[in-house]
Amino acid sequence: MDNFNTARKLTAEFLGTAFLLATVVGSGIMAETLSPANTGVALLANTIATGAILMVLILIFGPISGAHFNPAVTLAFLIRREINPGLAIIYFAVQIVAALTGAMVAHIMFEAPLLEASTHVRTGPAQWVAEIVATFGLLATIFGCVRFRVSAVPYAVGLYISAAYWFTSSTSFANPAVTIARSFTDTFSGIRPEDMPGFIAAQLIGAVLATIIFGWLLNPPEETSGE
Amino acid sequence: MDNFNTARKLTAEFLGTAFLLATVVGSGIMAETLSPANTGVALLANTIATGAILMVLILIFGPISGAHFNPAVTLAFLIRREINPGLAIIYFAVQIVAALTGAMVAHIMFEAPLLEASTHVRTGPAQWVAEIVATFGLLATIFGCVRFRVSAVPYAVGLYISAAYWFTSSTSFANPAVTIARSFTDTFSGIRPEDMPGFIAAQLIGAVLATIIFGWLLNPPEETSGE
Amino acid sequence: MDNFNTARKLTAEFLGTAFLLATVVGSGIMAETLSPANTGVALLANTIATGAILMVLILIFGPISGAHFNPAVTLAFLIRREINPGLAIIYFAVQIVAALTGAMVAHIMFEAPLLEASTHVRTGPAQWVAEIVATFGLLATIFGCVRFRVSAVPYAVGLYISAAYWFTSSTSFANPAVTIARSFTDTFSGIRPEDMPGFIAAQLIGAVLATIIFGWLLNPPEETSGE
Amino acid sequence: MDNFNTARKLTAEFLGTAFLLATVVGSGIMAETLSPANTGVALLANTIATGAILMVLILIFGPISGAHFNPAVTLAFLIRREINPGLAIIYFAVQIVAALTGAMVAHIMFEAPLLEASTHVRTGPAQWVAEIVATFGLLATIFGCVRFRVSAVPYAVGLYISAAYWFTSSTSFANPAVTIARSFTDTFSGIRPEDMPGFIAAQLIGAVLATIIFGWLLNPPEETSGE
Repeated sequence: MDNFNTARKLTAEFLGTAFLLATVVGSGIMAETLSPANTGVALLANTIATGAILMVLILIFGPISGAHFNPAVTLAFLIRREINPGLAIIYFAVQIVAALTGAMVAHIMFEAPLLEASTHVRTGPAQWVAEIVATFGLLATIFGCVRFRVSAVPYAVGLYISAAYWFTSSTSFANPAVTIARSFTDTFSGIRPEDMPGFIAAQLIGAVLATIIFGWLLNPPEETSGE
Repeated sequence: MDNFNTARKLTAEFLGTAFLLATVVGSGIMAETLSPANTGVALLANTIATGAILMVLILIFGPISGAHFNPAVTLAFLIRREINPGLAIIYFAVQIVAALTGAMVAHIMFEAPLLEASTHVRTGPAQWVAEIVATFGLLATIFGCVRFRVSAVPYAVGLYISAAYWFTSSTSFANPAVTIARSFTDTFSGIRPEDMPGFIAAQLIGAVLATIIFGWLLNPPEETSGE
Repeated sequence: MDNFNTARKLTAEFLGTAFLLATVVGSGIMAETLSPANTGVALLANTIATGAILMVLILIFGPISGAHFNPAVTLAFLIRREINPGLAIIYFAVQIVAALTGAMVAHIMFEAPLLEASTHVRTGPAQWVAEIVATFGLLATIFGCVRFRVSAVPYAVGLYISAAYWFTSSTSFANPAVTIARSFTDTFSGIRPEDMPGFIAAQLIGAVLATIIFGWLLNPPEETSGE
Repeated sequence: MDNFNTARKLTAEFLGTAFLLATVVGSGIMAETLSPANTGVALLANTIATGAILMVLILIFGPISGAHFNPAVTLAFLIRREINPGLAIIYFAVQIVAALTGAMVAHIMFEAPLLEASTHVRTGPAQWVAEIVATFGLLATIFGCVRFRVSAVPYAVGLYISAAYWFTSSTSFANPAVTIARSFTDTFSGIRPEDMPGFIAAQLIGAVLATIIFGWLLNPPEETSGE
């Protein structure tokens, strides 16, 4: 990553996050259009598209910006002092702007309103627990693979999100920038603006918990050599 | 694995098994909720979520605890004297407790009763044969990849279970801890408590058979060098 | 492969072919049971199970027997003089016996008749062309990956068959032993015994064509070094 | 690639492009035949077949011809002066002829008219934006992986197209040769001949944009060593 200057890092982070959102929102629209009566098939299509694009985007942009695309991930690396605070704050801003841009691009491609408040209710303690679990697992995936097999990160993250779309009742947003952008789409993947704060708070709790627990788990003092 | 002390090994085994069960049970609930009239779509979603999370969990926790998550796997390594008996017994206990915990987390996320006896009938000689075959194949997958291409183990196990969900009439539990935990969920993935012993006995038979046959197959005396 | 004696090679070829057929037939039964009204979903499940198990079986048994599981593949290697004629003939016999055994295991697991003639009509020039194309492509996949990236063979073969199930009108049997065994199952994956010879002839034509064309394509005389 | 002479390069480009089209068109016919009432399931099957065969074809033919299979890709490499103009022009011709051949093979396998003008309407600014985005992303995938992890190209391209089938309103043709051939099939994957120019123009815009932006992004002057 040190070969790339800040302008390139931010461009990478912007393009990656925008493509991620275009995929989440766009494939959601396509899926509910093609399978309106079978939500299972629609979520399956949404899952495959999202999992696949995550693998691709992390392969492309990982070596440039780290491919965070996610303020919860940037926060975790900030806690671990692996990104400096100034850059982290710019990452947060770029991720949010890019997420909104990606949602707009999806809306243009599918002739939907450019941005529109969602009416999709997603709230309550059960879904907040789900977001804590989902984000905890996402960070666990990243920390574990970075520690043991860094070349597997792109695939592991895509696979993790593919599973998490199904095993969490919230369908695993696990990303504050994604959550903000999805509050502006009144389609399959949307979330009501008033439900946003609960999701984001849960995501940050999950990220901090994972950072603490995996900080202990993966870095034993008795370690003498890498695997 | 030797870099990590017992507390870390047990934590890894606990987190991995709990996430596995949360995925099996949670994705089952999500799938039957979204596609109640099309069980094929529901099992497909359950399959993709389970296969994907297995790959991720073995990538994360394999280097710490071996990522057994399964008393039948621990038993096989015990027979091969690749884990000591004391640790194996603690593994069994942690796997069972973690499996129950994972099922409870799924129930919390989906607002189901914390633990509830299943009413899903799964019994009879045909399904017992299926569990022998399923567990035999799982151990074959592990032994074969450990012997020839250890970096493929996470992917191979996830792929194997994805296939086995469909080619066995029992949908391939292949794991006594998973079987116990699934007897406490009255949802898509459940199994009646009274059907549990038959499944677990079949799984242990499959594991022992695979250990014997692959012990002979993979370790020829005439071998002079690795692949 | 030279580390393993003939008994181990034949055992590997037997176990792999039997598991392949148990998967093809078993997942076909499961799929049509769960999604009787939606054949698309059923074939999708059959596809995912078959593609996944092929990857696993080639990972496990490839280093022992070459993981042919298929007389058309053995024939191609025989033409290329990469297997001796005596062993090739034993491979043919073991593959056929194993394929029948795998179908029987599937039938036992799903409480179907042990062996039963299929009534599924699969015949005509269009499907024969499909089997030529399917087998040509399978051998192309094997020759290409063996030449350029041998570690990708298990994944490439599984992916190829996953595609070929859908792009050929015959659903890509591409394997004489599989064809014989599938004539003995009156379920989703069956083929009428009288339709068998046409399929097998087409498969052998596809295999021979691929051996000739890829023999020229992949081994240029002007080549001076490997990739 | 330099080990292979022009005849072999063109043969590779021909076989790869023909198989790609046979898969796109053939799996589309199979999918709409099996799931006429559920277009979501049909597109899912079409997606899996296309994504899988792309991975396989790039694995096989990449080391011989570069596995472009796509005039937009050849154009991008021409702009980057990584292919000479004479060969590029022959690639264009071979790709178009091969794409038509592949569509014909699919039609033969499924007993459809050899070539027939499509009646499937695909037009309008929203779909043109979608084709710009789709092709931009495809080139981004290729440039990014070639730069950072060349062995991942086959998988990344297959995954990218799997996602793009769903997140673009045009289902991501992203390939002028594919677009031409698909105008000659009146099946699931077709496009009306009169809608072809808009799609192709959009694809070329996307390819040129990606070549410019990623030329800047991936090759920083301050770089001192590869990853």
